[in-house]
Amino acid sequence: CEDCGRVYRADHYIKEKMQVELDESIEAVNEVLETYDLRCECGGKFKNPEHFNLMFSTRIGPGKGKSGYLRPETAQGIFIDFRRLSDYFRGRLPFGVTQIGRVYRNEISPRQGVIRLREFNQAELEYFVDPRKKTHERFDEYKEVKITLVDKFDNEFRIKLDDAVKKGIIANKLLGYFIGKTREFLLEIGVKEDKMRFRQHKDDEKAHYAIDCWDAEALTEYGWIELVGIADRGDYDLKRHSQMSGEEMNIFIQFKEPAKAGRKKLKPIMSKLGPKFRSKAKAIAKKIENYDGDVENSIVIELDDEEINIGKEFFEIEEVEEEIYGEKIIPHIVEPSFGLDRMVYTVLEHSFDRDIVDGEERKVLRLKRWLAPVQVAVLPLLTKDEFINVAQEITETLKKSGIFTEYDDSGSIGRRYRRYDEIGTPFCITIDHQTLNDGTVTLRDRDTTEQIRIKIDDLISALWELINTDREIFKFGVKFR
Amino acid sequence: CEDCGRVYRADHYIKEKMQVELDESIEAVNEVLETYDLRCECGGKFKNPEHFNLMFSTRIGPGKGKSGYLRPETAQGIFIDFRRLSDYFRGRLPFGVTQIGRVYRNEISPRQGVIRLREFNQAELEYFVDPRKKTHERFDEYKEVKITLVDKFDNEFRIKLDDAVKKGIIANKLLGYFIGKTREFLLEIGVKEDKMRFRQHKDDEKAHYAIDCWDAEALTEYGWIELVGIADRGDYDLKRHSQMSGEEMNIFIQFKEPAKAGRKKLKPIMSKLGPKFRSKAKAIAKKIENYDGDVENSIVIELDDEEINIGKEFFEIEEVEEEIYGEKIIPHIVEPSFGLDRMVYTVLEHSFDRDIVDGEERKVLRLKRWLAPVQVAVLPLLTKDEFINVAQEITETLKKSGIFTEYDDSGSIGRRYRRYDEIGTPFCITIDHQTLNDGTVTLRDRDTTEQIRIKIDDLISALWELINTDREIFKFGVKFR
Repeated sequence: CEDCGRVYRADHYIKEKMQVELDESIEAVNEVLETYDLRCECGGKFKNPEHFNLMFSTRIGPGKGKSGYLRPETAQGIFIDFRRLSDYFRGRLPFGVTQIGRVYRNEISPRQGVIRLREFNQAELEYFVDPRKKTHERFDEYKEVKITLVDKFDNEFRIKLDDAVKKGIIANKLLGYFIGKTREFLLEIGVKEDKMRFRQHKDDEKAHYAIDCWDAEALTEYGWIELVGIADRGDYDLKRHSQMSGEEMNIFIQFKEPAKAGRKKLKPIMSKLGPKFRSKAKAIAKKIENYDGDVENSIVIELDDEEINIGKEFFEIEEVEEEIYGEKIIPHIVEPSFGLDRMVYTVLEHSFDRDIVDGEERKVLRLKRWLAPVQVAVLPLLTKDEFINVAQEITETLKKSGIFTEYDDSGSIGRRYRRYDEIGTPFCITIDHQTLNDGTVTLRDRDTTEQIRIKIDDLISALWELINTDREIFKFGVKFR
Repeated sequence: CEDCGRVYRADHYIKEKMQVELDESIEAVNEVLETYDLRCECGGKFKNPEHFNLMFSTRIGPGKGKSGYLRPETAQGIFIDFRRLSDYFRGRLPFGVTQIGRVYRNEISPRQGVIRLREFNQAELEYFVDPRKKTHERFDEYKEVKITLVDKFDNEFRIKLDDAVKKGIIANKLLGYFIGKTREFLLEIGVKEDKMRFRQHKDDEKAHYAIDCWDAEALTEYGWIELVGIADRGDYDLKRHSQMSGEEMNIFIQFKEPAKAGRKKLKPIMSKLGPKFRSKAKAIAKKIENYDGDVENSIVIELDDEEINIGKEFFEIEEVEEEIYGEKIIPHIVEPSFGLDRMVYTVLEHSFDRDIVDGEERKVLRLKRWLAPVQVAVLPLLTKDEFINVAQEITETLKKSGIFTEYDDSGSIGRRYRRYDEIGTPFCITIDHQTLNDGTVTLRDRDTTEQIRIKIDDLISALWELINTDREIFKFGVKFR
């Protein structure tokens, strides 16, 4: 803006105001801005629009150095390593490669907490597949799963994965498999089923090369946000990298039975080549023998950087049948791409809850038990040595068995319960007077605030089961109080 | 270089040629270059030396953007978050914060494989500690451990950690603890004891603020390389961040008993202040009451941005005794900083071995069993359905129990053994004819190539024990062949 200096992303702004998608040329943007006299929200006129690179650039090495960029996604590194990776998998499809890492985008206006960041964390899987076999051996495990889909025409419906693939809404079983698997994962970490949907990219929204693309979205305070993008990228990436680098990026697929194929084989006629080409005749004869192109009235061969036209009077044509053992294909890539920061945010928001305990409002983070960073808090009722010693011993034992355990003796027991409710700790163990008499402690469930008494010796096995399931504590002891 | 264009790092080059350490000024470098007529290895003269920033720079945001840099270490992010972190630990020392991540240094000449990279991976622990309590509650677990030290005078010796601390070679028990812990960790991942040493930074080598600094070094094909730096950074980082940001970065430490301290308290004499200062007298009286500085013949107070000199005729001095409950201190920081890429390289080099098996040379990677990326390979002797089915069933069972397992039916059994020896897989299971009769398989040990027969049902418990210990396979079955 000429007046207030605010910077807009022109294509987004025009889309918002005019509901049109533009191609990305400066001219197109300029035309729309002028024709419709679009202005800044402050009323000021816009300066000329400019291209803005969403990648951060830097210089590498001494002196002026070479130009370099921070990666905007992890995927391309995997594509570039394709040859090495396909060797690792001994050239057999399908294979998948994952990478987790920081990526960087020079967003014009980062905002909404962790929803739009200039540096964020991605986990991407690049799944390389034979284009004629876009399925997955475990698709059947998910085919009965019902999901909420929003298709590219904005129709929303609940449908079985199998039906969505059969009706052609989801392009293939492989995408269907990843959609089912992604849903399962999101549920496992605590994204709510009724706040989750899979939305198909519209035709003008998806990359021009993409065959089909689905976003796993979650409903949050910021509206529906994309957590995962699942895209069938076709052969675009490998083809482009191959074109630019000159390196072959394909897989040799062996036929079950060698195929027979008719082929024209040329036999040079030396008695005619000799007089005409003299000292070059022998080399030319060899080229003719190995010639593999079309044959019209003449063929063109290359010798010492020179193209030579050879009329068909210089060779005989023989029809031969050859065995072909396989073919080279460029794999297609299906890519589930996870935005880790957004997933963490969504899990926190979907887990946060308030309820009433003992007549007072309580804040509680209902994290999945296995996911909680502190799974068990061990609390001596009083800060006396006999309580503290038992509590610290239990803490050490639980830690050694692999349970994330914290010891805490600061503040009243009620205040400590609230503290651990707030950070999502599913279980609190309290060492009280009775502990010193009979070796039992209380075990408190975060979600219900119910307690049982349990023997110290039974804690490890009970907690292992509780943390890895949704069972109730009453399986392991009788209600206390 | 003016002739060949090669770029040198001047301070390193001068150190190499002249065995002198320079301060980092351009002038000092120039003087040495001219005085000694130092030249490029090609014989050419050097251009004028320039400062070179080892940090990668970029621009953030739209337009010209703001200047930004890629982090050259993970540590500073932790220091900047000090206030939040100390709140998290409820203001109690000691506490430690770890971070793992990619860091970036614009090295002038990256070389030696992964030893000097422009982007590499660090794992750093910043341990915040009361400067008067530089010890660790678990130091005693390591005090009898013998380590190889090279002190700052280049003396190399084997010594008990406890003795090294007592003799003042290692500055304090806390550094001693981290040295012991680091040694234990490096041994656990497979760095060889006889190729490991801890080298103290010389006085002119360590950062000016560092109290003591030790590098864990490993002997490799590239010579001794630093894997871990363990530094007592004192209070330098927090002090500097605090000075630059104006934010207090300290911890309030409560005394066990409140201390009594004598203090001069000033009582304003209104009968003298009134006539002199009129309407300001009341405000000045309040300032005098709260005055907390030294008292000579007069004091200076500040009122409405004006400094006012108040002679001692305007107040009485009273000696009072006050209770002081604690004090604010700036914690010291001890930092073990791990270079992950170099550790991975060293483990690979130290694990790589050749021996003779069946009269032929074998390449074998003697990775620690628990560390191997593939812990068990399951191999059907023949690619017939009855062998394959059993093998795949075993593979699935082992995977589900948390053992990294791979199935492989490609190539002769001998070739497959070699393949898994080469990638460090400690155990191979082979399904052979006898398996189909009696439900036993062979279990082969990578290091000895010995085999036993074992029941399929006993595999999980045997493998769990084998992978997590150094036990021999013969504990679990009788020798086969």
